Amino acid sequence: MTVTTPKGFAAAGVRAGIKKSGNRDLALVQNLGPLNSAAVVFTTNRCQANPIIWSKQVIADGQASAIVLNSGGANCYTGPQGFQVTHKTAEAVAEQLSISSGDVLVCSTGLIGEQLDVTKLVAGVELAAAELSAENGHLAAEAIMTTDSVSKTATFESKHGWSVGGMAKGAGMLAPGLATMLVVITTDAVASSQELDRALRAATRVTFDRLDSDGCMSTNDQVTLMASGASGVTPSFEDLAAAVKEVSQSLAMQLLRDAEGSSHDIAIRVSKAASEEDAVKVGRSVARNNLFKAAIYGNDPNWGRILAAVGVTDAAFDPYDIDVLINGVSVSRKGMPDQSRDLVDLTPREVAIDIVLNAGEHEATVFTNDLTHEYVTENSAYSS
Amino acid sequence: MTVTTPKGFAAAGVRAGIKKSGNRDLALVQNLGPLNSAAVVFTTNRCQANPIIWSKQVIADGQASAIVLNSGGANCYTGPQGFQVTHKTAEAVAEQLSISSGDVLVCSTGLIGEQLDVTKLVAGVELAAAELSAENGHLAAEAIMTTDSVSKTATFESKHGWSVGGMAKGAGMLAPGLATMLVVITTDAVASSQELDRALRAATRVTFDRLDSDGCMSTNDQVTLMASGASGVTPSFEDLAAAVKEVSQSLAMQLLRDAEGSSHDIAIRVSKAASEEDAVKVGRSVARNNLFKAAIYGNDPNWGRILAAVGVTDAAFDPYDIDVLINGVSVSRKGMPDQSRDLVDLTPREVAIDIVLNAGEHEATVFTNDLTHEYVTENSAYSS
Repeated sequence: MTVTTPKGFAAAGVRAGIKKSGNRDLALVQNLGPLNSAAVVFTTNRCQANPIIWSKQVIADGQASAIVLNSGGANCYTGPQGFQVTHKTAEAVAEQLSISSGDVLVCSTGLIGEQLDVTKLVAGVELAAAELSAENGHLAAEAIMTTDSVSKTATFESKHGWSVGGMAKGAGMLAPGLATMLVVITTDAVASSQELDRALRAATRVTFDRLDSDGCMSTNDQVTLMASGASGVTPSFEDLAAAVKEVSQSLAMQLLRDAEGSSHDIAIRVSKAASEEDAVKVGRSVARNNLFKAAIYGNDPNWGRILAAVGVTDAAFDPYDIDVLINGVSVSRKGMPDQSRDLVDLTPREVAIDIVLNAGEHEATVFTNDLTHEYVTENSAYSS
Repeated sequence: MTVTTPKGFAAAGVRAGIKKSGNRDLALVQNLGPLNSAAVVFTTNRCQANPIIWSKQVIADGQASAIVLNSGGANCYTGPQGFQVTHKTAEAVAEQLSISSGDVLVCSTGLIGEQLDVTKLVAGVELAAAELSAENGHLAAEAIMTTDSVSKTATFESKHGWSVGGMAKGAGMLAPGLATMLVVITTDAVASSQELDRALRAATRVTFDRLDSDGCMSTNDQVTLMASGASGVTPSFEDLAAAVKEVSQSLAMQLLRDAEGSSHDIAIRVSKAASEEDAVKVGRSVARNNLFKAAIYGNDPNWGRILAAVGVTDAAFDPYDIDVLINGVSVSRKGMPDQSRDLVDLTPREVAIDIVLNAGEHEATVFTNDLTHEYVTENSAYSS
């Protein structure tokens, strides 16, 4: 039920001693082929970590034979020394697996501005290489966790003999462009890197990119899709894209449910928008409004905060012709109160906000969490 | 020391019974002339409250003889009935003061989507009109408070015989375009409405608009400047503008210090930017980053979160040629760690973040607060 569900992949998750907790902190996933086509979507943050800079070079030719991921340190803003650490990690993987370091993707997650211990990383890579197995996908998923409370995995199995598997980590800083998250998706379908790229971008656009847990975008986000071709089956592009989207959506919803310190999962559906872009814009503005998010934490259907957040966007709408529903209760219609806010029950974890712009026929849903005491606690603890 | 410090103004602050607490909730400020020139800056939120819609009509001719302000209800998204309430409030003031309702500005603050009790408002206006006095400016400042813990007033007195006075309310939702706040500034200088408008816009641009407490922009913000001309003195435009800016800056800093549930006042100074706009953009991005704000609450000099917030802007800079100082300690230089973050003392309330973009010669400072447990508590309490 993870990255090793598709044929042609082996994985490991080991304790390299990078995390002070002593938990697993280094994951390795090897593509055993026969194909090694791959595609990656990177953070759009301009301040990028060394593994991002490295991996962009690796993926330029659309090929990757392995990916190594560490938690316990972001290796971002660590200068030339930090880049050397990434480089040496990739070389250690290459040596262990007898492949080129130019085919080894690297991901890191953790605190910015601290050097990683290259000795521990290299020893961890050796350990991981020795434990690579089709049985160890769940350990890899565990090794990439930071503040996650559970590991996240998902799979899709086609009745035509091919499958897609994935793992993700991320429990905060979920924002557009990509959440703070590392995702590895594998498939044993036969597919070119161009097809993988198209399928991955189409999937992330409507799944991970629609998560906006706290509006903060990481320097280290990376979503990787690798194909081994080991099933020998070549699905249609539509089937492949649908499978990648399904796995991405499952992982995205797992990230949402495990967002740092949240007590509500909020789906903000914006409909009757003039364009999908407008719908996303409005949804994101509400998703980032701290007053709204704190109100939901307090089980308070304070719909004025929703409209105030809608009003700061430049989306097409008449401010006095917007309808708002919270958990199905029509609290505001056409600029006036409608049903009593007291009818809204916000005690369940799932919250549905419906914003009807009455300006067109497009729609989009943006997902976020509430702003809680626990969020503040987790994110104010000394340097995490 | 308030709006009645300048000659030619009378004020009152009374208990109209709108606030459940029984505290003062209605303020009235009358301009006794001889001039009644005025200027107003309104929220840029497209979802605007009824008093905003009303006041825009009033100020169209650059004249206002009185302003009435209530706390305890925003009168926003209350439909035609809500607009009637605003209209009737202005008419009640006009009747009491024997002026035209077309010269009466109205402001409201409180919960969106609830009707105000017009009977209470009209009775409150009668009470306030009876108590109008040059001695009661401080009661007006008290009557506009919502979650403010203290009333905010400021004055400037010229040695040439004229003065400027002001009052403000606002303790959350401080954001660009205007904070959630109501501000009334008075002067007995002789000035045209055009001069007042120029002076007020120049002042708000670099004071209230640089406050970004929680990124949320209100539907009810209004900053009003009224001139009585009662001093008989006509200052130069530069002197008038400087005085209005000084009073605005004092009020803005009082708003910052009283922001809901904050434990740190954070000044984010962005320098060596290619333009002032770039500097503001970068400052605002950091000011709105919940991870950064939670870190400051935890006295954690987590400078990676600052750079991650800088990196999502499109300002001109080389991501690896940015310097960051926290309270004077150079924690990061040119994409690398510099002095140890352990040298930073974040225990004082005042926090100075210096971001040097090394891309030009412009600068700007944006002010914000930390994200605290108390912020979440105040804003998750049922409908405030």
